[in-house]
Amino acid sequence: MEELKIFAPATVANLSCGFDVLGCCLDSVGDEMLIKKNDLKEVRITRITGQDLPMEADKNVASVAVKALLEQIKSDQGFDIEIDKKIKPGSGIGSSAASSAGAVFAVNKLLGEPFNNKDLISFAMQGELLASGNAHADNVAPALLGGFSLVRSYCPLEVLSLPVPEELRVVILHPLIEIKTKDSRSIIKQNVSLKSAINQWGNLGALVSALYTEDYDLLGRSLHDDIVEPVRSILIPYFKELDELVTKNGALGFGISGSGPSVFALCRGDENANKVKNVISEFYSDKEIDFELHLSSINKKGVKIL
Amino acid sequence: MEELKIFAPATVANLSCGFDVLGCCLDSVGDEMLIKKNDLKEVRITRITGQDLPMEADKNVASVAVKALLEQIKSDQGFDIEIDKKIKPGSGIGSSAASSAGAVFAVNKLLGEPFNNKDLISFAMQGELLASGNAHADNVAPALLGGFSLVRSYCPLEVLSLPVPEELRVVILHPLIEIKTKDSRSIIKQNVSLKSAINQWGNLGALVSALYTEDYDLLGRSLHDDIVEPVRSILIPYFKELDELVTKNGALGFGISGSGPSVFALCRGDENANKVKNVISEFYSDKEIDFELHLSSINKKGVKIL
Repeated sequence: MEELKIFAPATVANLSCGFDVLGCCLDSVGDEMLIKKNDLKEVRITRITGQDLPMEADKNVASVAVKALLEQIKSDQGFDIEIDKKIKPGSGIGSSAASSAGAVFAVNKLLGEPFNNKDLISFAMQGELLASGNAHADNVAPALLGGFSLVRSYCPLEVLSLPVPEELRVVILHPLIEIKTKDSRSIIKQNVSLKSAINQWGNLGALVSALYTEDYDLLGRSLHDDIVEPVRSILIPYFKELDELVTKNGALGFGISGSGPSVFALCRGDENANKVKNVISEFYSDKEIDFELHLSSINKKGVKIL
Repeated sequence: MEELKIFAPATVANLSCGFDVLGCCLDSVGDEMLIKKNDLKEVRITRITGQDLPMEADKNVASVAVKALLEQIKSDQGFDIEIDKKIKPGSGIGSSAASSAGAVFAVNKLLGEPFNNKDLISFAMQGELLASGNAHADNVAPALLGGFSLVRSYCPLEVLSLPVPEELRVVILHPLIEIKTKDSRSIIKQNVSLKSAINQWGNLGALVSALYTEDYDLLGRSLHDDIVEPVRSILIPYFKELDELVTKNGALGFGISGSGPSVFALCRGDENANKVKNVISEFYSDKEIDFELHLSSINKKGVKIL
């Protein structure tokens, strides 16, 4: 096999009470990538469409992640990477993670699978380190594994796959504003009250239970973030109004996707998800901010070959 | 039915990463209680054997919990409560919770079950409030429900029952020293680092997953408390040495039971649990501190009628 075309999905990380440890993979939003072996012993970004991103191999997350993989197995195989970028960078739905995860997934296949998908997470995290200064796993893990990924531990890295309730749907609103990742990180307090932390882990434990038992109502009650959302949400226009609106219209829960500005609503079933999508669209249409809206089921496979 | 004899089990709360939210119920350690209706419109503690505890109805957790229940349904039915106290007060394995939970369980039965067992938790918590100044639920909930109880939220109170892996065993060491609950609480920092909190909720999420999947190794890896154990363990003699000892001998995990001084080791199967119990016994036998050792499976029923 000399080349591979893949779909690299968007993801929602920092899922409410699962800040920094829980993410899920989307079905209907993602990039397409074409990865080819070359004879140059060099990893190159040969084409990017859709967005303006660095072509230099040391500055693009995809090539950086691939190099981390090749270094691990002391391979000097070269690769050309083409990215048709459909996820907007800075949207908060794992744009860099899709590129990193997609690239290492394809390269691993083209090399005869020296690694399994879980092993690939740490290489893809090198892309995240480049993109945000923080090698977090809660976007790249669900991008590679599909479904819900829980990062039990970063050192050593241990990621669990959690079950996906069948009727779960995600509505994503991406207000087209820029929030600098640096700003978004800098406003988070590095110390939190024990009381809030206890609420948070009580909710996360319940959320995990809800995924195993397909208890949608419990899932909704657990989707609270006592710690990061209260500070980060001030950067997101109409956050509180949207929260009230989608809750009133039957969404299970609402929160910030990644570090924003995208927000997500989890819904049960297509009918409710469409309703929630419509009310968000109506609400935002007379605001001064352009936006994109997505409706997706949970992608159980992660990156896939096209 | 005029009287009821019950077994009120001991419990392990503050289960490592589940500080304040996760507890489990023991099988082989507990009190016996006899609760009888009386015609005096009065709740009385008529007999306590085994330990020296207050007989005054306003100072005993069992009668305080029962009064909270009766008040809720505006009942003036009187009860006599006899307690054969086998769990030592201040041991850290839910001594007060057993009395509170046992009393409300029996009274509820004698009144024709106006409440289900989950409803009883909030009444039993009034006993905990009296005993420790803090109406925590992670002892009384597993005492009433059996198995593992997760407190998702205190306000409003929501408690989940989690599955019990069949081969799980608990070894409890109770060093016969006194740690004042006040001291044990006062050394806990009221602010924690976000980094530690993230580790904690990653581990708790994984622990819940391990209970659903019966993954004993994952259960063991998740049993870490980054926040409370590091400070509280200094009050417990030989904590670090015990941790190393039981880990070396195959225990899944080790931690402080409740607010101590008891410590617990979770083990897989009777053979390993007996081994761990024996090495603890040997280690502690030449120390200057008297101790008690228990080995128990997880009690799935909670309080039961004798």
